[in-house]
Amino acid sequence: MPDRDVLKREVGAQAAALVEDGMVVGLGTGSTAAFFIESLIARARQGLNIVCIPTSERSAAQAAAGGLALVGFDTHQVIDLCVDGADEITTSGLDLVKGLGGALLREKIVASAAKKLVIIADHEKLVDRLGTTCPIPVEVTKFGWELTHARLAALARAARLRVGTDGAPYVTDGGNVIVDCRFDPIADAAALDRQLRDIVGVVETGFFIGMAAMALVADRDGVRQYMPQ
Amino acid sequence: MPDRDVLKREVGAQAAALVEDGMVVGLGTGSTAAFFIESLIARARQGLNIVCIPTSERSAAQAAAGGLALVGFDTHQVIDLCVDGADEITTSGLDLVKGLGGALLREKIVASAAKKLVIIADHEKLVDRLGTTCPIPVEVTKFGWELTHARLAALARAARLRVGTDGAPYVTDGGNVIVDCRFDPIADAAALDRQLRDIVGVVETGFFIGMAAMALVADRDGVRQYMPQ
Repeated sequence: MPDRDVLKREVGAQAAALVEDGMVVGLGTGSTAAFFIESLIARARQGLNIVCIPTSERSAAQAAAGGLALVGFDTHQVIDLCVDGADEITTSGLDLVKGLGGALLREKIVASAAKKLVIIADHEKLVDRLGTTCPIPVEVTKFGWELTHARLAALARAARLRVGTDGAPYVTDGGNVIVDCRFDPIADAAALDRQLRDIVGVVETGFFIGMAAMALVADRDGVRQYMPQ
Repeated sequence: MPDRDVLKREVGAQAAALVEDGMVVGLGTGSTAAFFIESLIARARQGLNIVCIPTSERSAAQAAAGGLALVGFDTHQVIDLCVDGADEITTSGLDLVKGLGGALLREKIVASAAKKLVIIADHEKLVDRLGTTCPIPVEVTKFGWELTHARLAALARAARLRVGTDGAPYVTDGGNVIVDCRFDPIADAAALDRQLRDIVGVVETGFFIGMAAMALVADRDGVRQYMPQ
């Protein structure tokens, strides 16, 4: 196993150790979140009694295969702890960019229901300012996407409709498309988030501002814990 | 034909008279907009040369059956004139509630692309404050709708998931559901609009604030023209 996966497994395990008996747990999506789910399955087999709300079909399938009990918002509207990855994390405020994997809307809905959102990542995701290393995914309604894309392109350094491996526009679980917007490192992500969401046709952005309560970040020396400053 | 339809036909015809040769025209949805489209078809048969972007499948079908040329945002991203109905109109600012018919997202995207939005209605739609006579439709993602509904219910006097004639949840063209939210007459619709849109899972609201340039309103004495004050 490459070093990086060893580290991801370690943060996944540390996050799983935060889960307590009786909790409603939000399951993130992505390679690091998959290690968290793996550890959670192991703990459940040792007797931990929890129910889970997944953020994607992929995480739902992994959890179900491992025997975790899945529930929905029809019966559970408060999540005790949600653990998810991120594409960028600011060390100061734990503001995030998420959604390169395409599950941003579900991830944001689940995170918004969580009493506590814990982010797990490796140290390459840490940035001073959002927008430094990755584009900001913006989920956009199919109808009129050309118009919305043009408006995003007027704000961003570059705005590109995401396409799948087949060359066709990538369609989210919610039936929308995604425009990946590149900015220079962003001075005020909250203001930009609002500006983007004010565009008619924008369903949601990949900014998660002020939502994370803790980040567990792996580097070569081990796992470091960050709290919003 | 009942009196009310005579009046709706008259405002529809007056709005169609605003259309000029060469324009890109946005076609609204609803019973009054249908009369506008009817008049527009008649003018096109007399030689008016226009292209149209419809806000619903229903308006598209009516326009196409009448021989109007339909285009999309792939080729036309600016609309010269959009004509649509409304469920409530403030006499002071021409702020609107729309979407009882279910096409609010498309109507808002088309309206947002229009240089000029003209509202046609009968005088029963005029109010001092929005929320007086009708609920505010809020378009919500299917995933997590129970959570979003609970958050809307905490803000509104009543929040009800819209159901179709078959008793199943009404699903919009965009694949979302609608929660109709009743408020007491609303003092600051722009602030409430923002508050609602800040809820994760809310795609769009039925508020159209500061978008209309003119309203043509029919009463028993004829058609009166309103401009934002």
